Amino acid sequence: MKKIALLNGPNLDRLGKREPEIYGSMSLKELESRMIAEAEALGFALHCFQSNHEGALIDEISRIAGDGFNAGIINPAGFTHTSVALRDALSGSGIDWIEVHISNIHRRERFRRHSYTAGACIGQIAGLGLEGYSAALRFLAARDS
Amino acid sequence: MKKIALLNGPNLDRLGKREPEIYGSMSLKELESRMIAEAEALGFALHCFQSNHEGALIDEISRIAGDGFNAGIINPAGFTHTSVALRDALSGSGIDWIEVHISNIHRRERFRRHSYTAGACIGQIAGLGLEGYSAALRFLAARDS
Amino acid sequence: MKKIALLNGPNLDRLGKREPEIYGSMSLKELESRMIAEAEALGFALHCFQSNHEGALIDEISRIAGDGFNAGIINPAGFTHTSVALRDALSGSGIDWIEVHISNIHRRERFRRHSYTAGACIGQIAGLGLEGYSAALRFLAARDS
Amino acid sequence: MKKIALLNGPNLDRLGKREPEIYGSMSLKELESRMIAEAEALGFALHCFQSNHEGALIDEISRIAGDGFNAGIINPAGFTHTSVALRDALSGSGIDWIEVHISNIHRRERFRRHSYTAGACIGQIAGLGLEGYSAALRFLAARDS
Amino acid sequence: MKKIALLNGPNLDRLGKREPEIYGSMSLKELESRMIAEAEALGFALHCFQSNHEGALIDEISRIAGDGFNAGIINPAGFTHTSVALRDALSGSGIDWIEVHISNIHRRERFRRHSYTAGACIGQIAGLGLEGYSAALRFLAARDS
Amino acid sequence: MKKIALLNGPNLDRLGKREPEIYGSMSLKELESRMIAEAEALGFALHCFQSNHEGALIDEISRIAGDGFNAGIINPAGFTHTSVALRDALSGSGIDWIEVHISNIHRRERFRRHSYTAGACIGQIAGLGLEGYSAALRFLAARDS
Amino acid sequence: MKKIALLNGPNLDRLGKREPEIYGSMSLKELESRMIAEAEALGFALHCFQSNHEGALIDEISRIAGDGFNAGIINPAGFTHTSVALRDALSGSGIDWIEVHISNIHRRERFRRHSYTAGACIGQIAGLGLEGYSAALRFLAARDS
Amino acid sequence: MKKIALLNGPNLDRLGKREPEIYGSMSLKELESRMIAEAEALGFALHCFQSNHEGALIDEISRIAGDGFNAGIINPAGFTHTSVALRDALSGSGIDWIEVHISNIHRRERFRRHSYTAGACIGQIAGLGLEGYSAALRFLAARDS
Amino acid sequence: MKKIALLNGPNLDRLGKREPEIYGSMSLKELESRMIAEAEALGFALHCFQSNHEGALIDEISRIAGDGFNAGIINPAGFTHTSVALRDALSGSGIDWIEVHISNIHRRERFRRHSYTAGACIGQIAGLGLEGYSAALRFLAARDS
Amino acid sequence: MKKIALLNGPNLDRLGKREPEIYGSMSLKELESRMIAEAEALGFALHCFQSNHEGALIDEISRIAGDGFNAGIINPAGFTHTSVALRDALSGSGIDWIEVHISNIHRRERFRRHSYTAGACIGQIAGLGLEGYSAALRFLAARDS
Amino acid sequence: MKKIALLNGPNLDRLGKREPEIYGSMSLKELESRMIAEAEALGFALHCFQSNHEGALIDEISRIAGDGFNAGIINPAGFTHTSVALRDALSGSGIDWIEVHISNIHRRERFRRHSYTAGACIGQIAGLGLEGYSAALRFLAARDS
Amino acid sequence: MKKIALLNGPNLDRLGKREPEIYGSMSLKELESRMIAEAEALGFALHCFQSNHEGALIDEISRIAGDGFNAGIINPAGFTHTSVALRDALSGSGIDWIEVHISNIHRRERFRRHSYTAGACIGQIAGLGLEGYSAALRFLAARDS
Repeated sequence: MKKIALLNGPNLDRLGKREPEIYGSMSLKELESRMIAEAEALGFALHCFQSNHEGALIDEISRIAGDGFNAGIINPAGFTHTSVALRDALSGSGIDWIEVHISNIHRRERFRRHSYTAGACIGQIAGLGLEGYSAALRFLAARDS
Repeated sequence: MKKIALLNGPNLDRLGKREPEIYGSMSLKELESRMIAEAEALGFALHCFQSNHEGALIDEISRIAGDGFNAGIINPAGFTHTSVALRDALSGSGIDWIEVHISNIHRRERFRRHSYTAGACIGQIAGLGLEGYSAALRFLAARDS
Repeated sequence: MKKIALLNGPNLDRLGKREPEIYGSMSLKELESRMIAEAEALGFALHCFQSNHEGALIDEISRIAGDGFNAGIINPAGFTHTSVALRDALSGSGIDWIEVHISNIHRRERFRRHSYTAGACIGQIAGLGLEGYSAALRFLAARDS
Repeated sequence: MKKIALLNGPNLDRLGKREPEIYGSMSLKELESRMIAEAEALGFALHCFQSNHEGALIDEISRIAGDGFNAGIINPAGFTHTSVALRDALSGSGIDWIEVHISNIHRRERFRRHSYTAGACIGQIAGLGLEGYSAALRFLAARDS
Repeated sequence: MKKIALLNGPNLDRLGKREPEIYGSMSLKELESRMIAEAEALGFALHCFQSNHEGALIDEISRIAGDGFNAGIINPAGFTHTSVALRDALSGSGIDWIEVHISNIHRRERFRRHSYTAGACIGQIAGLGLEGYSAALRFLAARDS
Repeated sequence: MKKIALLNGPNLDRLGKREPEIYGSMSLKELESRMIAEAEALGFALHCFQSNHEGALIDEISRIAGDGFNAGIINPAGFTHTSVALRDALSGSGIDWIEVHISNIHRRERFRRHSYTAGACIGQIAGLGLEGYSAALRFLAARDS
Repeated sequence: MKKIALLNGPNLDRLGKREPEIYGSMSLKELESRMIAEAEALGFALHCFQSNHEGALIDEISRIAGDGFNAGIINPAGFTHTSVALRDALSGSGIDWIEVHISNIHRRERFRRHSYTAGACIGQIAGLGLEGYSAALRFLAARDS
Repeated sequence: MKKIALLNGPNLDRLGKREPEIYGSMSLKELESRMIAEAEALGFALHCFQSNHEGALIDEISRIAGDGFNAGIINPAGFTHTSVALRDALSGSGIDWIEVHISNIHRRERFRRHSYTAGACIGQIAGLGLEGYSAALRFLAARDS
Repeated sequence: MKKIALLNGPNLDRLGKREPEIYGSMSLKELESRMIAEAEALGFALHCFQSNHEGALIDEISRIAGDGFNAGIINPAGFTHTSVALRDALSGSGIDWIEVHISNIHRRERFRRHSYTAGACIGQIAGLGLEGYSAALRFLAARDS
Repeated sequence: MKKIALLNGPNLDRLGKREPEIYGSMSLKELESRMIAEAEALGFALHCFQSNHEGALIDEISRIAGDGFNAGIINPAGFTHTSVALRDALSGSGIDWIEVHISNIHRRERFRRHSYTAGACIGQIAGLGLEGYSAALRFLAARDS
Repeated sequence: MKKIALLNGPNLDRLGKREPEIYGSMSLKELESRMIAEAEALGFALHCFQSNHEGALIDEISRIAGDGFNAGIINPAGFTHTSVALRDALSGSGIDWIEVHISNIHRRERFRRHSYTAGACIGQIAGLGLEGYSAALRFLAARDS
Repeated sequence: MKKIALLNGPNLDRLGKREPEIYGSMSLKELESRMIAEAEALGFALHCFQSNHEGALIDEISRIAGDGFNAGIINPAGFTHTSVALRDALSGSGIDWIEVHISNIHRRERFRRHSYTAGACIGQIAGLGLEGYSAALRFLAARDS
């Protein structure tokens, strides 16, 4: 069974609790469960991981890189705009990544409009809410099946 | 039957002919046919329009704004980075838009990383190739059905 | 009878329909009628033109330039901030122009605070609502009578 | 009788003497007299004040703020581009202001194209010569009568 | 008895009257009285001064500099961001200053995030409302007693 | 008993050892003890936490957010200028924060003058040495008691 | 017979009428006739096109791209500095272009010194007056014969 | 007897008291006396004026402008870098000015390297200490005698 | 025996696996072994540490700072360009550091040309491949022996 | 016989040897011979000079300026982007210059897109290879004959 | 007899010939003679040197540095704005320099307003014409006698 | 015997005399002798050259390029930050270069942090003092032997 990774960055552990009018009321747990089900329906195993630690995300990408994954989905959250190290991890992983943002970062503060990590991904989806994860998953599944 | 608009901007009339290694070999005609079929399958009528003229796109958005559309998908191509007028048309249309880019504009020339139009859309999808259009359509259909 | 031109740029065809809390409920048609009446009362013929096409506005300015006009009023809307071609058309027309903006562009987004076209006009009026057009007309009429 | 304020900033005391080919030969005294007459014809009392002192202008705005004025007209001259304090005074005054510039600041040196004070006014008129003051007065009188 | 100076800059004469939802309803007079009482309780004499004139503030600092003061507290308000002269006055005064801002200037407009005067002070307190003055006073009193 | 959090960021574990001429000779342990005592005297329980890990600070803020705290004090040290993730954690925590810096960051290197985190706090205190912590505590205690 | 295209952008329809001290007194008609004759003498057919519409120029380039042309000459005039769409049209056309400017754009206003379109051309000629067109033609003819 | 003006800006009233290791121990009074004597020896009357008020300097320049002066020397101190109003006063005065700085502003903080006022003077002398005033005086005296 | 530290930052755990055409085929393990041997030959003990966690590197530097080390070598990788906290750790450690980069960061993307950490080191070596580590070691050994 | 100068800047002595795929295989000697022949056919004497020394080029321009030349062609190569002194030499020479670049500097590194010297020339030709020299020669010959 | 150096940079060999309305009609030879005479009258030997070669100026400064000079005057002309090497030569020479500019560089093109060399001099004189050299000489003579 | 070049740029002729606390007391002569000996020990001939003339360095690189050298070491000193011509010479020479700086340019003035020449070298060593030359030599010798 083919494998896809789903990584979530800082503060996404508080999904459903933090600013629900923006991010909705679904918790990270629920989101991951739903995504795993969607992936299985498409014939893929989904590996989920969340951390508030930039280093833990890099560690995980390093592990994934050597473990037969087809592709990955990442929401780097606040690290999007500040982390060259995460960008390097993604571009050195040898697999393709889609960057997902729940909100439309292009109409928020100026500093959210630049992404270090998008330069190491094949594409970016922003502003579609939690549907952005599904869209990324379907794209990768279609491409790799 | 509910209506969604699909607008394509400058140079997308040459889809399939221009740099096929980047943009694929499907023509605009074929893309539009495929999208219309996908829309119908989702229970929506899709109205397609392409122009190399900024003014023609604004005229079309003006027409759409008063014609009972639910939402729209737009690939503003080169106008993305330079047109305040298009942004104003989108934000004044009273309906929601998704911005789509075939290539990942975030890893190309510096001047392609800023989007005037994304600030007037609810989200942006970039780098998923022609699949980006389908992802946008599915998102809007799911939301509005 | 002396002639003055009144040009309106992109999205002003939707005046009265788009964001009426900002732009008021008067339509472009009504605005033009009112302005023609005001011009006649001042002894001037007013020629009105609106387009969402930068090229159509330049064509019109080119036509005006060779047609015995005394002066012109222009609201370049979104083209204000992006069009060097329109600036060149205005400065090459051989007649004087007043730039009008309905809203106060100096307190909106940063990109609206720079005007290419104002550099080719004798002055700019911003933020007086539709009264800005009247103020411009009275100024030109007084100067040229 | 309703009251409108007319404030002139630094160097405008030398109106008529300084660079008359740009600013005309009318003195500040004469301008103020003419404006008072125009205001009276419109049913308003016009209070005139000029100072080369940023602090004196702020003092005056503070006085005006508590003295039943309907609105004000200000030509902040050189302070336009450098005074946050004046901006704060205007926006804290509780009345509406129109910013007037005799010359077209948008086609002069780069540093004259940014206005701190316009962000605290409802609009700006530039380049109409001394007529700019009349246009501002007519606008305020019409709005407040 | 040791002496501390309390200087307030432009528009702070309108404290309590201007935007009370931000600045509270206490007047400058009342603030100064409260601060004098607090200072006395700490064994210091507090000298209060407010002006909308940059020059008057510099004159006052010049006077203070030669008059046996231990330290000073200053809210330069709008001059914070624009006055090199005030910075020079503070750094040439030979005594230590604390800069106080009632609101959190670090989350307001971009131009309020840079301070010329803070570079000539030993510290800055922002966003604590009128309590910021007390905090500054307690710090200076503790240090100099 | 009401609870306030005190978070210290990278390198503050070396307080007292590192550059004592700037940061003083008190250790972090001693600072925390003194602050706990001060808090108790004001009727508050103070929870102290220090980490060199951005992720650990975010984890802690996430824990605090759901644990009945009234407010918090944070010295983000080097993360102040580079961490969007920390800013997001603070603004998503649902409680108010005061940012404290021991030295006056406004007169140090240019890159220390911009703060991402201050935009998510109600205020900032800089340059008061270790007294800055006490000032922040007194402010929060006064406000919340 | 081999074919070369000659495209002229906005306001060049007014050649000979507009600022003749800069652009000379030859009309666009006359320039095109002279260029066609020069091309024929070199054994090439020259296809001439002018428009004030960015979209019309892109349409024309799209037509040219599929019609057996060897190369093209373009004076994008005001679009030089603002049109990413035109740049994309040129670089996607599959033929080589020379950019020509009648005046020396490198010594005019700052905003004229940057060219989006030159990045999609093999070279640029500026400041040689109408001779620039001939120089471009001779270069292309020599290269392609 | 011909007249030359000598204007000194903010904080120069503290000459001799403030940072004497940089500015020397001569007071402003003594400097002015020495300059008056030097001027008389050259056959000129020197009019001296100092203020910490930008407005007072502009008032004085306005007075000077109508009072038969040949030329002027000005040390705008902190206003050099921030005052457009002072620049306008100098350039509108109708007489020539030399700008003098005691220290070498070109090797101090970045913000001291730009001068608004120098653009309205015929020259600038910086870094020669109090000798700079003499050099300016000798230049003007030589030129105007 | 004297001690030198060797710290490697994010993604260097994947040395030999990631982009071997750039970074070579030697693993981090092998590099560290080789370096330890080289250090011993020079009479030094080399302590090696790698982490993808910024905080873990700061923790380690904190430990090193109090543990009798002579000097250190650090390749901060992606943290080079983004970490003020790491810079502060290095400059507060009380020992000297050499910054090493395997590739020539000065000819890569723009954002890699600025180093926060180099400002806290005595020097930087870039582009010499793995030999850069040896060069740094020899330099420190020579200096400290 | 009328005289035209041909100056070549740094590294052009290596023409034909250095990167022949870009610059072709013709040596500087051969280029100069060919250009002399072309000039003679047009009735002009061509004076050729090359140097890697900015000062030698300025010396030569100084000599040319006083020696009856009609005009000049210059390829300033690397000095184009960095030499104000060369710009001053050209603009002070009293004759007209055309700037030539073999490659299209407008599509190379960012720092090659600004030219100090073009501001002192009547025009610039870039990207036409060695033909650019001929185009410049023909333009000058036509103009001056 | 004490020695002062006078260095002139590029294009100053053409003094009196180039743009005499700006630079006057005196040749460099005559200027140097006059300056030598002035220096002798003040009891100093003046050593004059001019070159269009940056390297030759550095060579000369290197020679001067070891040859018992008291001080120097330099007009670096176009090198002022571009030469770090000249700045390093001046600051490494061990003697004091005054920078002189004949015209007022502060009101010319933007790129002339920044000086690399002034940061290595004790002061700068600009805009006094050839009198600037005398002013510098008198200053140095007074200081060193 | 294989050959390596060692080039030193402006002001390095004064090594040992200029700021010895920074650059040490060894003269250029001595440095070159030591380096020649080191090279010979490694089986290489070292060719040394120093000049204060940018053109002379380019001439020398041009000579070296055609003379069988394996590689080169260059300390471009002040030209590092300003010379595109030197960069072009290095990248066109066909051999590899290492850039060496005695001091750590990354912690000096802002303008020293950008290097034009490093982009044409395989690496850069900064801050290791004169040992930087040895490190570069050993690297090149190891690589080419």
